[in-house]
Amino acid sequence: MRYELHYWPTIQGRGEFVRLALEHAGLAYVDVARQQGGERRMLALLDAHGVAHNPFAPPFLKAGARVIGQTANILLFLGERHGLAPRGAAGRLWTHQLQLTLADLVAEVHDSHHPIAAGLYYEDQKREAKMRSADLLRHRVPKFLGYFERALSRARSGFLVGARPTYADLSLFQVFEGLRYAFPAAMKRLAPKYRRIAALDARVAALPRIAAYLASPRRIPFNEQGIFRHYPELDL
Amino acid sequence: MRYELHYWPTIQGRGEFVRLALEHAGLAYVDVARQQGGERRMLALLDAHGVAHNPFAPPFLKAGARVIGQTANILLFLGERHGLAPRGAAGRLWTHQLQLTLADLVAEVHDSHHPIAAGLYYEDQKREAKMRSADLLRHRVPKFLGYFERALSRARSGFLVGARPTYADLSLFQVFEGLRYAFPAAMKRLAPKYRRIAALDARVAALPRIAAYLASPRRIPFNEQGIFRHYPELDL
Repeated sequence: MRYELHYWPTIQGRGEFVRLALEHAGLAYVDVARQQGGERRMLALLDAHGVAHNPFAPPFLKAGARVIGQTANILLFLGERHGLAPRGAAGRLWTHQLQLTLADLVAEVHDSHHPIAAGLYYEDQKREAKMRSADLLRHRVPKFLGYFERALSRARSGFLVGARPTYADLSLFQVFEGLRYAFPAAMKRLAPKYRRIAALDARVAALPRIAAYLASPRRIPFNEQGIFRHYPELDL
Repeated sequence: MRYELHYWPTIQGRGEFVRLALEHAGLAYVDVARQQGGERRMLALLDAHGVAHNPFAPPFLKAGARVIGQTANILLFLGERHGLAPRGAAGRLWTHQLQLTLADLVAEVHDSHHPIAAGLYYEDQKREAKMRSADLLRHRVPKFLGYFERALSRARSGFLVGARPTYADLSLFQVFEGLRYAFPAAMKRLAPKYRRIAALDARVAALPRIAAYLASPRRIPFNEQGIFRHYPELDL
């Protein structure tokens, strides 16, 4: 069976956390909306009447007849099925807890350029975006990164959970990459405090299947339509 | 074993989703921070060095020696253990997916009164809060409630998943109650469109253990320090 990933075709966005998991596990999948006519198929599934478990929004994963939505939930599913998280309840829940904490940070990063409304243009909320981004970089990013740095320090393996990379490690890699793309000046100042995260970032980037993916056209570059956007005026 | 719930003692907040699950399942628990010296114990655990799985923030649940954080993750744990979600993988993931979608709405409701920074006073971001709340009530709340109304319509049982209430039903109850508290005028206009949600709300409120809980001093009233705040100037 080939998985179908349904996500917006021109951005990394939240879909990227799923792409990284599928790629690292070496799973066969189609990135549906990037195929001819695929975006229409994705949107049709969102409102489909025959689907028992309609997702609220992309990304969602089609696994045979099943449709699974919510990024962290998709990763929970893939993690159990394909060894991307420990099998035992404690390790499985801890991996998920870390993922949900990363999801909170991702939502805050999104809102740093859209603090008033996701449906309005950035240009129409630029003043508010500057205030929110300043707070994000001063308070929130250090709080989150400090948390993950300590988690890595306690884990001692170089990965967040146990000796092998889990989907939470792949996601932390993605978030760290995204923060460095969006806020290069702030991250240059902050990064020295988070040496363990930087080491994990390099370790994940060097995983053979991740390295191959990052070098492939399947990896969409960061850009200013995604979650991590480089607007110099929001950097510190 | 008695569970320990660790959450801020004067608000419903995110802890309330866990309280409702514990109450409905009839589980013995201590609401730690509401005991003498309990808030200090909670804060100490957040930074404890001996804890393998430190949470990022309250709420967290202590189950014996285990500490489990992130609201949806706690509910995933309780759901599996105490029959608050189906046992099969499909139903278990669907319940969790619904919960994560509710969590997204809860975060948006929080940001409607704190669009710039959680660390600043409401009064210092009131202008921005008015803009964000207007968007929330015009676009986001109808989108989310419409989604849950359709999910209830497909489920046909009066509950979101199968014939019995799951933690997602308890959470939808809490969100609907919260929205009506925070935005009575807007919700009065919107509510007729969401008859299935209103019916579920009444059905959950009448579950014997939930009814007993809501009538007890264990239920903290809604107030203006929590997530759902009634600021008349933000209502439509």
